[in-house]
Amino acid sequence: MSANRSIAPLKIIASGVALPENKIYSSMLDEKFNKTKGFVEKHSGIEYRYHANNTDSQAQLAAQAIANALQHNQLSPQSIDMLINASAIPVQALPCSAAHILEQSNLNDGIACFDINSSCISFITALQVAAGMLATSQYQRIAIVSADIASRGIDWQDKESSLIFGDGAACVIVEKGDGTSGILSYTHTTHTDGIDFCEIRAGGTRKNPRSGMTEDDFLFHMQGKKLFRMASALIEEFMQRVFTESNLQLEQIDTVVPHQASHLSLEHMRQRVGVTSDQLIDIYRHRGNQVAASIPSALHEAIITDRFYEKQHVMLIGTAAGLALCAMVLVP
Amino acid sequence: MSANRSIAPLKIIASGVALPENKIYSSMLDEKFNKTKGFVEKHSGIEYRYHANNTDSQAQLAAQAIANALQHNQLSPQSIDMLINASAIPVQALPCSAAHILEQSNLNDGIACFDINSSCISFITALQVAAGMLATSQYQRIAIVSADIASRGIDWQDKESSLIFGDGAACVIVEKGDGTSGILSYTHTTHTDGIDFCEIRAGGTRKNPRSGMTEDDFLFHMQGKKLFRMASALIEEFMQRVFTESNLQLEQIDTVVPHQASHLSLEHMRQRVGVTSDQLIDIYRHRGNQVAASIPSALHEAIITDRFYEKQHVMLIGTAAGLALCAMVLVP
Repeated sequence: MSANRSIAPLKIIASGVALPENKIYSSMLDEKFNKTKGFVEKHSGIEYRYHANNTDSQAQLAAQAIANALQHNQLSPQSIDMLINASAIPVQALPCSAAHILEQSNLNDGIACFDINSSCISFITALQVAAGMLATSQYQRIAIVSADIASRGIDWQDKESSLIFGDGAACVIVEKGDGTSGILSYTHTTHTDGIDFCEIRAGGTRKNPRSGMTEDDFLFHMQGKKLFRMASALIEEFMQRVFTESNLQLEQIDTVVPHQASHLSLEHMRQRVGVTSDQLIDIYRHRGNQVAASIPSALHEAIITDRFYEKQHVMLIGTAAGLALCAMVLVP
Repeated sequence: MSANRSIAPLKIIASGVALPENKIYSSMLDEKFNKTKGFVEKHSGIEYRYHANNTDSQAQLAAQAIANALQHNQLSPQSIDMLINASAIPVQALPCSAAHILEQSNLNDGIACFDINSSCISFITALQVAAGMLATSQYQRIAIVSADIASRGIDWQDKESSLIFGDGAACVIVEKGDGTSGILSYTHTTHTDGIDFCEIRAGGTRKNPRSGMTEDDFLFHMQGKKLFRMASALIEEFMQRVFTESNLQLEQIDTVVPHQASHLSLEHMRQRVGVTSDQLIDIYRHRGNQVAASIPSALHEAIITDRFYEKQHVMLIGTAAGLALCAMVLVP
C-alpha cells in the first residue's frame, strides 16, 4: 500500500547505543530512600537504570553510541558527511553540542554538524530534518545521535521524578536509499499551556548569575499529574491526525517505538491508545526514561529484535516538555 | 544563469528585527573602563549597541522580532505553520527555546516548533532545514527567529570581548515559492581544534552544581587571537569550496551578508576575501556582534535597503564557535 504513497526517501542503515557504567538497581534506591524492599521497583516499573558519574562527559557518551553504530554495521567513520545532535540538554551554552560530540568522535573533522532540539522528541525531528538534507544529494550519509545524562539534574527530593531517569545515548545512521523506504508522515504539535510542566530553568538566559538563580534551577522539575492530564486530553485527537496524515490505521502499524517517558505512559499506550504488546517496544524496565535518547534507543531495540526491517510500517511517537507531541510513520 | 541550476526552492517573504531598549554608547564604556573619550569606539568600531536589562526575556525579544516581520509585511500570525528558533544560547536547558518563543508570540498555539543550533551560524543552517521542510509540502510558511542576549554573559573583566556584543533578534519568514528563488549552495564545516576558542562552559551537563562550576563558567570566553588566526587560515580554502559548490565567482555575488563578528572580521572580508563595500552588508557600528541574530539582522538590512530582492545572488556567510564556517548562496 505504501508503495503508492508519497514518502520522503530515507534509509536507516545502522544503529547503536551506549550506556554509562553504573547500573542503579531500584533496590539501591529503596535503601537510599529508606523504603521497604521492592517499593521503588513497584512504583517506577524499573528494575535498573544506568547513571553516569557526576563528571562523565555527555559528548563522550554520544561518541560511544556513534562508534557502536559504526562498528555494529561495519561502516567507516570517514563515510559520515554530516552529524546531527538530537539531545534534549546541551553540553554547555556555547558552542553547540554537535561540535563537542564531533570532537570526541572518530568522524572526520571538518564535516557539517549542528543540534536539533525539540526536547524529548528531538530524534524524530532530526530524522525529518535529515531527510531534507539527503534530498539535496549534497549529503550522503548522516549520523544522528541523542545523548542525555538526566542523572545530573535529578531532584533527589522529588520522590516521583527521581525514580524514573536513566542516562544513555543512541545513534542512527541514515542515507537517502532507493526511495522505497522513508518517511510516510511527520506530525508535530506544541501546546505551550504546558510549558512549565517539565523543565530545567537554568542553562540559558533565564536563570543565571546575572538574572538570578538558585541550585534548584539546575534540577529537573515535573508537575506529573498536570502533565499526564494534559497529554491524556490531547492524545486521542493527535492520534487521529497521525492516522489521517499517514492514511493508516493502528492495526497497520507493525511496530510502535514510543518515548519511554514513564511506566504509566507506556501503560497508557497499551490501554488508551490500544497498542498491543506485540506492537510496542518497551525497554523501560532496564533503561528508565533516557530523555531524548529514549526513542532512538528503543528504535535500536526494534532493529536488533527483528521488529524493524522485516516490517511494513513503524511508528515513532512521543510526548515532550513543551508540551509537545510528535509522531512519524516510517516505511523501513 | 542560475535559472539553469538546481536550486532548493525557498522564498523569503518577510523579515523583521527587535532590539532591547538600552542603547549603550561606546562613550559610556569609556567611562566604565576609565578610558579616554573615544577609546572604546576606536577599538571596537562600534558607536553604540543595545543591551537588555538583566531580567529581560529572550523569548519575548524573539516574539517581538516575529511580530515585527509579520506587521512589516502585513501577514497574519495564524498563517505560520512552523516555528524554528535559530539562536545560539538557549532560554533554559529544558524545554527547547522554540516552545518559550511560541508561548510569547501571537502565533497559533499547537504548531510545530524546534531549535536549530550551530552557534552563530544557526540562522543559515535553519534556512537550509526550512527548505527541506517546505519541500515536503506539509508546511507552507515557516518563521525562523534568532534572538540572543549576549550581554547576560559578557565578562566585563575581558577588555576585548566585553566591547563587541550587542543584543537583538531578527525573524525571517519563508515559503517554498515558485521554484525560481531558493538555495543555490550550502557549505558548512566544523573544525573542532578551535572548540574552546569561543565558549560559555555552563548551561548544560559539563559545568553545573553536580559536576562543579564557578560564576566564571557562565561568562563568554574568547581566545581572540587564536580564533582569528585559525579562521584566517581556513577562509581561503573555504571560499574556494563555496565558489565551486555555487559555481559562481565573488564578482557574481551582488550582496554579501556576513556574520557581524567583529570590526576586524568585517575588515577581513574586505581586505582578504575581497568583498567590496558595495557588496558588503555592515551593520556592526550600530549593533555590535549580535551572536546568532547578526546574520538575519544584516539580511533584514539588505532587504530594506534594496540589496536583496533586486539582486541575482546573495551570500550569507559566517564563522561561529566550534569552530565552524558556513556559507549559503541564495537566489532571491
